[in-house]
Amino acid sequence: MSISETYFPAEPKGPEVKTAIPGPKSNAKLAELASVYDTKAAYFVTDYYNSLGNYICDADGNKLLDSYCQISSIALGYNNPALLKMAHSDEMAVALCNRPALACFPSTDYYEILKEGLLSVAPKGLDKVCTAHTGSDANEMAFKAALMYQANKKRGGKPFTEEELTSVMENQLPGTSDMVILSFEKAFHGRLFGSLSTTRSKAIHKLDIPAFDWPKAPFPTLKYPLEKYEAENKAEEERCLKELETTIVNYPSKIAAVIIEPVQSEGGDNHASPAFFQGIRAITKKHDVLMIIDEVQTGGGGSGKMWLHQHYDVTPDIMTFSKKMQNAGFFFSEEGLAGDQPFRQFNTWCGDPSKALIAKAIIGQIKEKDLLKNAAETGDYLYSKLASIGDKNSKMLNLRGKGRGFFIAFDLPTPAERNQLLGECKKLGLNIGGCGDQGVRLRPALVFGKKHADILADIVGKAFENL
Amino acid sequence: MSISETYFPAEPKGPEVKTAIPGPKSNAKLAELASVYDTKAAYFVTDYYNSLGNYICDADGNKLLDSYCQISSIALGYNNPALLKMAHSDEMAVALCNRPALACFPSTDYYEILKEGLLSVAPKGLDKVCTAHTGSDANEMAFKAALMYQANKKRGGKPFTEEELTSVMENQLPGTSDMVILSFEKAFHGRLFGSLSTTRSKAIHKLDIPAFDWPKAPFPTLKYPLEKYEAENKAEEERCLKELETTIVNYPSKIAAVIIEPVQSEGGDNHASPAFFQGIRAITKKHDVLMIIDEVQTGGGGSGKMWLHQHYDVTPDIMTFSKKMQNAGFFFSEEGLAGDQPFRQFNTWCGDPSKALIAKAIIGQIKEKDLLKNAAETGDYLYSKLASIGDKNSKMLNLRGKGRGFFIAFDLPTPAERNQLLGECKKLGLNIGGCGDQGVRLRPALVFGKKHADILADIVGKAFENL
Repeated sequence: MSISETYFPAEPKGPEVKTAIPGPKSNAKLAELASVYDTKAAYFVTDYYNSLGNYICDADGNKLLDSYCQISSIALGYNNPALLKMAHSDEMAVALCNRPALACFPSTDYYEILKEGLLSVAPKGLDKVCTAHTGSDANEMAFKAALMYQANKKRGGKPFTEEELTSVMENQLPGTSDMVILSFEKAFHGRLFGSLSTTRSKAIHKLDIPAFDWPKAPFPTLKYPLEKYEAENKAEEERCLKELETTIVNYPSKIAAVIIEPVQSEGGDNHASPAFFQGIRAITKKHDVLMIIDEVQTGGGGSGKMWLHQHYDVTPDIMTFSKKMQNAGFFFSEEGLAGDQPFRQFNTWCGDPSKALIAKAIIGQIKEKDLLKNAAETGDYLYSKLASIGDKNSKMLNLRGKGRGFFIAFDLPTPAERNQLLGECKKLGLNIGGCGDQGVRLRPALVFGKKHADILADIVGKAFENL
Repeated sequence: MSISETYFPAEPKGPEVKTAIPGPKSNAKLAELASVYDTKAAYFVTDYYNSLGNYICDADGNKLLDSYCQISSIALGYNNPALLKMAHSDEMAVALCNRPALACFPSTDYYEILKEGLLSVAPKGLDKVCTAHTGSDANEMAFKAALMYQANKKRGGKPFTEEELTSVMENQLPGTSDMVILSFEKAFHGRLFGSLSTTRSKAIHKLDIPAFDWPKAPFPTLKYPLEKYEAENKAEEERCLKELETTIVNYPSKIAAVIIEPVQSEGGDNHASPAFFQGIRAITKKHDVLMIIDEVQTGGGGSGKMWLHQHYDVTPDIMTFSKKMQNAGFFFSEEGLAGDQPFRQFNTWCGDPSKALIAKAIIGQIKEKDLLKNAAETGDYLYSKLASIGDKNSKMLNLRGKGRGFFIAFDLPTPAERNQLLGECKKLGLNIGGCGDQGVRLRPALVFGKKHADILADIVGKAFENL
């Protein structure tokens, strides 16, 4: 019995498409919702009650195989019975009805929930956690941790000066900081004001919003197939590392931290080699800059490892997470990254026990059903099938993500053809996401099996033929 | 039968304090938690299973009357049966297990949930909602809405220029924006990078974090009792309004929006008159500046009205909320505040249906049990009792919040005495919060009745005597 059959005996055998998508019921509901809520980005209205496993059901009863999964945020498929059990539990009800201000009034069971849940999958070396609310929020809390840590180090244990205490109330130096966070070209780290200043994926994310003038470094543009362009890719990565180091050394103020995604996701599923990430770790250590790895989209097991950077043999100072974990936050080890005084790294909720319980249940299932192995093996199987399509169709470019589980992507020659392909797939019953200008990314749940891979490949193949 | 008796027949008759607070079990659990999670701001470990109604129970079994309520975030008391029922419902389980990317794949029932819940208490004139995740996040989304709206207006419908599209990727003008958000001295609007730039309550919130150089205006410092200082207070408010208008008129770049709390909460429970808020509305309209009212802490019924600014007869352009609603976001009316294109005001989750369901259940109870009336009446009763204590004790200063339900506060002569009073209250079985440098704020749940007010006043009276 496949993993999806153990969870979802009633899962559809294949996509069922009865109407255009969005269909008449979706459109009617969107019109209603649009009177009170922004729907300009909506694809269709979703019936979450009748979505099951790897199939998302829309308001018209169309059932699509889902390889996008709420922008990479569904770990165990729709209406997973193990999650439903947790959702119906007494501990969940108590967590939902009595949401604590966790930093002031932590709950008697928060330690156990963290220990059995999130901390049980903490990457090696990062044994503490700070919980947050969304990926953007987790990244900004990580920035604050890094900035305060570096400022304390510079201050050398001395108390704040009178000048710092007064100037900060005017948003001026020296109380506020001219230290910065460096990010990479094409990166995506969120859309709040600090995180958006490190996001460099698309103009539309950033236009008209004030930004900090923070520095960037180039992210390598690899050529595919990797085997063919080994030397060129190595040179490209070395160029990027060199430019990173030059920026760090010459920057007029201190770079507190570098933030990087293990695979740049929104920006186009841009991969780099383990050596590149190891190079960043060496440079950041050498120059006393912290390294933050943003696993918001890449984390949670889709790569065949719990965190994608575990493919690289690198230990960052901070690793952020959200999405598939359903609970956001960051892991760290250095005591000083928790702040040197109370109420500095602080907010009302500091997380949410109801989400920590969901994370614990998801992690429990990942272990119980060895879903990392499924992602690794099914991912390899899927990659091979897509490679065969690519062999026959010259419009599939830069197939990538081999050995990275489900973290597979490919490009089309133009943004228009990419969008056309996404539309064709939807018509054929596959919900699939784009990324960057002309990329297609796969982000199925961890319960996606070989039979789903067959259907996906079949539809993608047909969609390419229809282009 | 009192409201709390209808919900909580087993609610304690009074505080039960058996150990020092934190007691030995709290301390042991804090030590354990501190090995993986920052506990520097913790008061005690809380047993949410055994907390009930207006009483918070700690790990040692101490039961404190709670007038702080998770920093103003518990609307219906602990373990309210109506909320527990919602928490155990099927719709909650489906919402928890299938968290949608709401802007792309909204759920079939989201319109009804919003309509019966949050939108049913939208302030007059603001009939649309944008859902978010926390108060800080709601405020930053409101800032982005205002900034994009003003930029679009300035651009006059023209498309983005090539220069805007390229410069924004470098975090430079003209693609990024030099428009600003104005806030008031002593304001608190959150701790993310944009919201923290508008927060001006305490240095410790802001030190070492980069900030936007955004402008401020003075918030009036009123003298109490109000009856005695009517003329002086009027002059003070006029001075502040004048300075606000001068700043707006002379500011070198455009002020997109002004953000203000109806009562400055973290900054010390600073009140101003309806005329002051009406003055801001007139000035912002005159100069084409948007007005954002931040009801994160003040909203949700504690003032005797659903939103505190409804005491002022003012309609802002945007009103933000979170905390007691358990669901964050902002209300607005102007279509353009939802963004002119898809994916501009956007993030993965754009809210959380599980929180929207909790908000709906809370709002349902507020209506069913007329909890606004309870807050207004019990608040008046409590105010009188505290005024009697103040008459007898010269260390109670600036009692304020008359006619504002539970939104009552007072000062002590020094921060040390304030902290001493908070400690005395805790020893006597009352969990109570400070604000500003020497303020004490009341933030009970909406189910706080006259018998609780009697106990609170009794303890506060004794604590003053013990100073």
